[in-house]
Amino acid sequence: MDKIEHIGIAVKDLDKSNALYASLFGKPHYKTEEVVSEGVKTSFFQSGPNKIELLEATNPESPIAKFIEKKGEGIHHIAFAVSDIKAEIKRLENEGFIVLNKEPKKGADNKLVAFLHPKSTNGVLIELCQEID
Amino acid sequence: MDKIEHIGIAVKDLDKSNALYASLFGKPHYKTEEVVSEGVKTSFFQSGPNKIELLEATNPESPIAKFIEKKGEGIHHIAFAVSDIKAEIKRLENEGFIVLNKEPKKGADNKLVAFLHPKSTNGVLIELCQEID
Repeated sequence: MDKIEHIGIAVKDLDKSNALYASLFGKPHYKTEEVVSEGVKTSFFQSGPNKIELLEATNPESPIAKFIEKKGEGIHHIAFAVSDIKAEIKRLENEGFIVLNKEPKKGADNKLVAFLHPKSTNGVLIELCQEID
Repeated sequence: MDKIEHIGIAVKDLDKSNALYASLFGKPHYKTEEVVSEGVKTSFFQSGPNKIELLEATNPESPIAKFIEKKGEGIHHIAFAVSDIKAEIKRLENEGFIVLNKEPKKGADNKLVAFLHPKSTNGVLIELCQEID
């Protein structure tokens, strides 16, 4: 776990939240991206070595739609940067964490990603992410 | 907002969670601290330039006890490092954010801190923190 790569925040209206977080950071988001397989539109803000990812659902079956329905808007996950995601998945499984996808998948922002089940991490959805070369 | 200084995670049992997060990070927490005024015991883990702060309530009136009662264990707040907390509080108030304590107060880890109301930030409790010289 090299650093917090980003924090994902579930929002209802990406345009409104982009304006809100631009006020917060004193600068606009630097990119947007749609991840069709996850049913989300995302935008990214930089804060020094870290990022904030805003996530809006693009369909009612999206994990983000379900999260907001259950818990309301707010922090959805923490992503940690790792340099070898496959080794890290193995290490964490051996430690007893539940890895939701044992084979890393393509996420937003040119990353391979894997998620740990919140049941095994005090209610926190943790993402591992490795930059794709 | 210079970087994510730390993420605060509300937990029921600090000892158990210290062991869990030590497994996650592959190294133990580097300090613990009690903040009597906030009714919390905390522990800190380093992840590169960032920290994870685990928070356990020390009494039933603690904000952390109330948070867990309402939402369960999980991410409680995001803290951003700022270099001039008083200037940042003024700037954010001018932008329309609700600052919970307009006068910075002493927090854990040798910091002056102020909180923004989640109502004004898409449900996210945001802490500003400035290192005390």
